[in-house]
Amino acid sequence: MTVPYDCIIVANGSFPTTARPLELLHQTPIIIACDGAVQALYDRGLAPTAIIGDMDSIPLSLRELYADRIHIVENQEINDLTKSVFYAHEAGYKHILILGATGLREDHTLGNISLLLEHAPLFDRIEMLSDYGLFIPLTKTATLTSRPGQQISIFSMYPCGEISTEGLRWPIHNRKLTAWWQGTLNEALGDTFTITLTETARIIVFCASGK
Amino acid sequence: MTVPYDCIIVANGSFPTTARPLELLHQTPIIIACDGAVQALYDRGLAPTAIIGDMDSIPLSLRELYADRIHIVENQEINDLTKSVFYAHEAGYKHILILGATGLREDHTLGNISLLLEHAPLFDRIEMLSDYGLFIPLTKTATLTSRPGQQISIFSMYPCGEISTEGLRWPIHNRKLTAWWQGTLNEALGDTFTITLTETARIIVFCASGK
Repeated sequence: MTVPYDCIIVANGSFPTTARPLELLHQTPIIIACDGAVQALYDRGLAPTAIIGDMDSIPLSLRELYADRIHIVENQEINDLTKSVFYAHEAGYKHILILGATGLREDHTLGNISLLLEHAPLFDRIEMLSDYGLFIPLTKTATLTSRPGQQISIFSMYPCGEISTEGLRWPIHNRKLTAWWQGTLNEALGDTFTITLTETARIIVFCASGK
Repeated sequence: MTVPYDCIIVANGSFPTTARPLELLHQTPIIIACDGAVQALYDRGLAPTAIIGDMDSIPLSLRELYADRIHIVENQEINDLTKSVFYAHEAGYKHILILGATGLREDHTLGNISLLLEHAPLFDRIEMLSDYGLFIPLTKTATLTSRPGQQISIFSMYPCGEISTEGLRWPIHNRKLTAWWQGTLNEALGDTFTITLTETARIIVFCASGK
């Protein structure tokens, strides 16, 4: 199996517990960890390539063990996840998966999901995986893979253009999604579906992991 | 102490584990439960006044125990939480708190948060509490209570007008928030703060429970 990402970033939210994100952690060559995720990685036998943050959430023993790979970034304007994303960009990685960016405080979850769209121009691919599903930012028309019956939700960011869909059970035609709930709980009909975006549309697609 | 709500609705997300939502469950006279929350309520010695949903998530023993208060609502277009909100509205309750509406699948979380604004016109007050904070929908200028240092995040819904703030550490002046992350991680300076909305602005305010 080809590993679909060249770099995983682990944020300070809920550490993943399901099989797929844990498999990917073991298969992906580079792990960049926000400081709050280092202990959870260590407990699973995983060593980060780089550790980013202000180091207030890492035990002293691990701080000493990993002294050669700690990068303290002082910038109150951006969170540790964003610092890690910039670090990955500067290091030249192109296919990024973010784990641990949801769960716990919901305002962090919302902020982290929306930041995917800000960071998308820096990479060939940047996605976010939780125990419940995969988040994909789209700034242009795309065809995505799916399982028949897979639950799909679409969230528009403001200012949003119009979107249309093909291959979803409840088709959307040239529509602006003006509230978060309007594009939720759709369903893939086959192995792929297509979302067409007008020029100003920017969306996040959520593909649920369960059926 | 006056109980601030006359009705609590418990949705199918993460059941609360922290003191404040559990206290409110014990103090509030009416509990409307989505079917997936009935077992968790029962385990804590709490009996719902009404149970809403398609009853695929309630054990048979509890379905029998509570046969007198089960309301099966067949409508594929709206989720169980929305069905419960409409039930509370029809029953005449005016001050609603929603619990268990976040956690687990993030697309449900996002949908449920945004539905607060849809439902706000039906009640004098409708808010959502999680283990991490309180969500308040605002469609007009308001002054909210706070603790000095309390973390506050503001999320605009599309189409958004402009907002301004008083009493927050990083003031916002006549600004459209065009991405979810832009209004996150602000902080209350004192016991209240004020958010001023232009006519078309519609926002969700998140007041974090921790300091």
